Amino acid sequence: MSDLVISSLANPRLKSLVGLRRRRARDEAGVTLVEGYEELALALAAGCVPRSLYVCPEIYSPAGYAGVQDIGHQQDLVRQARALGVEIVQLSRAAFEKVAYREGPDGLLGVVASVDRSVAALTVPDDPFVLVAEGVEKPGNLGAMLRTADAAGVDAVVAADAVTDWGNPNVVRASKGTVFSVPVASDTTEATIAWAQRHGIRMVVTTPETEVRYTDVDLTGPVAIVVGAEKHGVSPVLLDAGERVRIPMSGKANSLNVAAAAAIVLFEAVRQRGSKRLHPSV
Amino acid sequence: MSDLVISSLANPRLKSLVGLRRRRARDEAGVTLVEGYEELALALAAGCVPRSLYVCPEIYSPAGYAGVQDIGHQQDLVRQARALGVEIVQLSRAAFEKVAYREGPDGLLGVVASVDRSVAALTVPDDPFVLVAEGVEKPGNLGAMLRTADAAGVDAVVAADAVTDWGNPNVVRASKGTVFSVPVASDTTEATIAWAQRHGIRMVVTTPETEVRYTDVDLTGPVAIVVGAEKHGVSPVLLDAGERVRIPMSGKANSLNVAAAAAIVLFEAVRQRGSKRLHPSV
Repeated sequence: MSDLVISSLANPRLKSLVGLRRRRARDEAGVTLVEGYEELALALAAGCVPRSLYVCPEIYSPAGYAGVQDIGHQQDLVRQARALGVEIVQLSRAAFEKVAYREGPDGLLGVVASVDRSVAALTVPDDPFVLVAEGVEKPGNLGAMLRTADAAGVDAVVAADAVTDWGNPNVVRASKGTVFSVPVASDTTEATIAWAQRHGIRMVVTTPETEVRYTDVDLTGPVAIVVGAEKHGVSPVLLDAGERVRIPMSGKANSLNVAAAAAIVLFEAVRQRGSKRLHPSV
Repeated sequence: MSDLVISSLANPRLKSLVGLRRRRARDEAGVTLVEGYEELALALAAGCVPRSLYVCPEIYSPAGYAGVQDIGHQQDLVRQARALGVEIVQLSRAAFEKVAYREGPDGLLGVVASVDRSVAALTVPDDPFVLVAEGVEKPGNLGAMLRTADAAGVDAVVAADAVTDWGNPNVVRASKGTVFSVPVASDTTEATIAWAQRHGIRMVVTTPETEVRYTDVDLTGPVAIVVGAEKHGVSPVLLDAGERVRIPMSGKANSLNVAAAAAIVLFEAVRQRGSKRLHPSV
């Protein structure tokens, strides 16, 4: 059932695959590793076709992820990938364990084209609606924001001065696969500001450092909603490049999770922009 | 530095503490266990005074939680608790490991009064603003919603037919300690509906099964925003008891995380209700 079987740990292809665990090697090769049934299923469902799929039927197991009761799911996924023309490479247990980056691998590892690109490579439609997340640290937050941004119908999500990368397995998981369908970019804050200005995109920056409410500004037209890092918020240079808005808060903790803040402002923009974006022609 | 030192594993008090790991025993005693520096710091910051604090200085360690660089933090927390009159009980390593419920315990375990109560025990102010979360499974989602609800200035959060309980350590953590400051209750869906009806609280239920948008209904006055379980949404009985609203969605995944959905509707209610609730007199 495989195009190739590798059992020697000295195999050069195996060695280069191990090398992809380093972010720099992934960046140079323009690929991302996607490990595990759930993540690969999300990628396939989003229309992402892996370049190669490394499999180890010996260690398929139903226990590795929630909701999957038997290894038939893994076999189905491999069949689905094969039908899409994906190269299937079977590895021995020792070989797979060498390339897996997770604890408790489930015998599936895909190599997919990187979704990361610079802001300059983003296609900008008329009237762009964008989310910029600066310096976000937790992959779960970045993935959750992407999922929400997808539901809000954004044209792109930019991670500015990102601490995590879009290829991070926890970003993929929290994004429910939308990392493979929503245009995403990763770039410096400076490049992001320059890009927005070049395209006439207003940056609306959430911060406690203003009295202007997010509900009191115009969020229609070419606009980027900007949220900042979990602890320190948006950087001064980005604050100065945009219009500041605050989310009014009550309560004892007096703070919102960054993904909740993004959800609130994105959907206020949806409310103001009306229904025209909600059933895109794609 | 302790009121009491326990090193015998046969100590009856230790045995009853171990018993509290069972939810039923906690419910009967009306207490919740809060383990770990970060969670206890959140509880104290929210004004929750533990009944007892079990400590094991032998296993204090800086490695167990993010951002804490030395064990001085643990010592400070114990001093702070002592100043509040909390009974401090020192345990041997073997004894502490017997009572800890986490992997990699950090030597701090508090017994606090349970925050769980029935809806009937909630105090209802004029013009109540409430979040009802039905059947939510993931503690992280329940905690995140509570934190957002706190920021929105709700009067109470009700977990209806809850799969997780408010005393769950991951709820405590994700809630940023708001579980100790926002009035919370846990009850059946039926009791929750009866309670809302008795107090004249309109239930506004988020569901894909309507064409009415959440932005097109009145969210002022006595109102409960209702969100449902991650997979199956709101139950039919609760759907029928309320007014259905939908969050319009674009995108490939066409779904929102339940905590994001709650954030969006809660803050639309805040927008409609105006500023009067945002600087409460407490």
